[in-house]
Amino acid sequence: MAADGLRHEFKVVVVTGVPGVGKTTVLSELAKIAESRGVKIKVSNFGTYMLETALKEGIVDDRDKIRTLPLRKQLELQRLAAQAIVRDAARELGSDGVLIVDTHALVKTSAGYWPGLPRHVLDELKPDMIAVIEASPEEIAARQARDRSRYRADMGGVEGVRRLLEEARTASIASAVHYASTVAFIENREGKASEAAMQLLQLIEKL
Amino acid sequence: MAADGLRHEFKVVVVTGVPGVGKTTVLSELAKIAESRGVKIKVSNFGTYMLETALKEGIVDDRDKIRTLPLRKQLELQRLAAQAIVRDAARELGSDGVLIVDTHALVKTSAGYWPGLPRHVLDELKPDMIAVIEASPEEIAARQARDRSRYRADMGGVEGVRRLLEEARTASIASAVHYASTVAFIENREGKASEAAMQLLQLIEKL
Amino acid sequence: MAADGLRHEFKVVVVTGVPGVGKTTVLSELAKIAESRGVKIKVSNFGTYMLETALKEGIVDDRDKIRTLPLRKQLELQRLAAQAIVRDAARELGSDGVLIVDTHALVKTSAGYWPGLPRHVLDELKPDMIAVIEASPEEIAARQARDRSRYRADMGGVEGVRRLLEEARTASIASAVHYASTVAFIENREGKASEAAMQLLQLIEKL
Repeated sequence: MAADGLRHEFKVVVVTGVPGVGKTTVLSELAKIAESRGVKIKVSNFGTYMLETALKEGIVDDRDKIRTLPLRKQLELQRLAAQAIVRDAARELGSDGVLIVDTHALVKTSAGYWPGLPRHVLDELKPDMIAVIEASPEEIAARQARDRSRYRADMGGVEGVRRLLEEARTASIASAVHYASTVAFIENREGKASEAAMQLLQLIEKL
Repeated sequence: MAADGLRHEFKVVVVTGVPGVGKTTVLSELAKIAESRGVKIKVSNFGTYMLETALKEGIVDDRDKIRTLPLRKQLELQRLAAQAIVRDAARELGSDGVLIVDTHALVKTSAGYWPGLPRHVLDELKPDMIAVIEASPEEIAARQARDRSRYRADMGGVEGVRRLLEEARTASIASAVHYASTVAFIENREGKASEAAMQLLQLIEKL
Repeated sequence: MAADGLRHEFKVVVVTGVPGVGKTTVLSELAKIAESRGVKIKVSNFGTYMLETALKEGIVDDRDKIRTLPLRKQLELQRLAAQAIVRDAARELGSDGVLIVDTHALVKTSAGYWPGLPRHVLDELKPDMIAVIEASPEEIAARQARDRSRYRADMGGVEGVRRLLEEARTASIASAVHYASTVAFIENREGKASEAAMQLLQLIEKL
């Protein structure tokens, strides 16, 4: 137990970003660069863990149904998912390892913006860093429009995205106060995901 | 006890808004619409509960004096008021009921902005949603100027209101992180309070 | 113990500000004005307490090395420093005294923005007020450029400072939610530090 209950042995970096910002690409670049530099990382997708938990408990039978569950049910899954992520990381990572948690700081739901890093999740993750992958609202909205099958929720076009980006920044800082996490804003320019990944890795190495 | 200590049986929706935004009108419209749709709600005004608590404890003899109490004294009243609100709601509402708490996310005091939803209040309310009723700074400032008897505190005109709106948004999101509450921003256009109320009710039904 | 575990006997005012805002000058003016008005204050510098703690524990041998310590090590020092500040204040101040804690709401580090008032520090300080000393980004950047020896970290010029000011506001409000602290934004105009100090003192007297 490091830093008196405030940290895990391994480092925990939560990587957030609004849908369409290119987070998945940045994270797959990160995995490659980390390997080539001998940095031991494990990337865990929060949504996947929520789904697996829900399947195990017989609550849903496919991923899309998670989002249609009442938020109170999702709340329970959130905590269980966070616990499972930490448990798995503890088995695989030592004090030189880095757990990357792929998730959101704020999720647009039909009942309003929903914090992706509320206190009961932070109590499990105890993040060293909350990274916020960003891009221009125009680029993000264009990417969402291009791939409708993937980004089903209506994000309200450029203005809706701009607003979500702003509120997600606020949410990241508000979440960071709970465990003294650093907050890093990383610009993911079109076609430059490996640069964003490199910048993220350099920040992680400073932790 | 729902969702493992994070929620009450009934739903809790905290409705906030700066003075002059028209929150009272929206809430009285909400009560009507909810009744006509068979949604069981109970609206509790935080300030009224604070006053009743203060009267019961012999601390003040009228409502205006609450605001002149030292903030430390108000802090105690805040917690007692939150507890009383929940206690009363538990008596009246079952798992299909909705408690509406009428309050502020941030209050302008002579000693600075004061959070209306600090942790010790959130620990009692455990909100499912924090709704933020908004309007244009110009409309709000005009309403404050028209009815000086009601909005005694000087809000600093249009610029002061704009600033308070911004900081209140931040405070709402910061408060939402504690209990994974959703945050919904609802525009209350001049003369359209029933539309705002309808929008709020639709969001509540998605919880 | 005042207000049921949420406050110390003495008042606690945390004074924050980005490097170059002129916080030190404001605080030395505050000490003078407070003395002339018979207000009992004690000013404690958070960084100095961290250094003393680190020296005592044999972790570093000079102040500059604190910033080069891994953040996890600084985390431990943060908590110990907060505890020592409160312990010393409790010896010197009664219920009429005011502890002023000179620190930051958000620190720019090589691993991202770092909260200066995270929960584990707030749990010790329990602030009545978080004051944020501000100035125009242009003035601050100019002051940083003039005195390179003092402000070593690159703050990214006017734009970097503007951004830090914004995120520091957010961090102040997010921190304020934990102990229902008021948040006061105080403008420190060039050459007008005593006016800023006077404004701060007047806010403190309203607590």
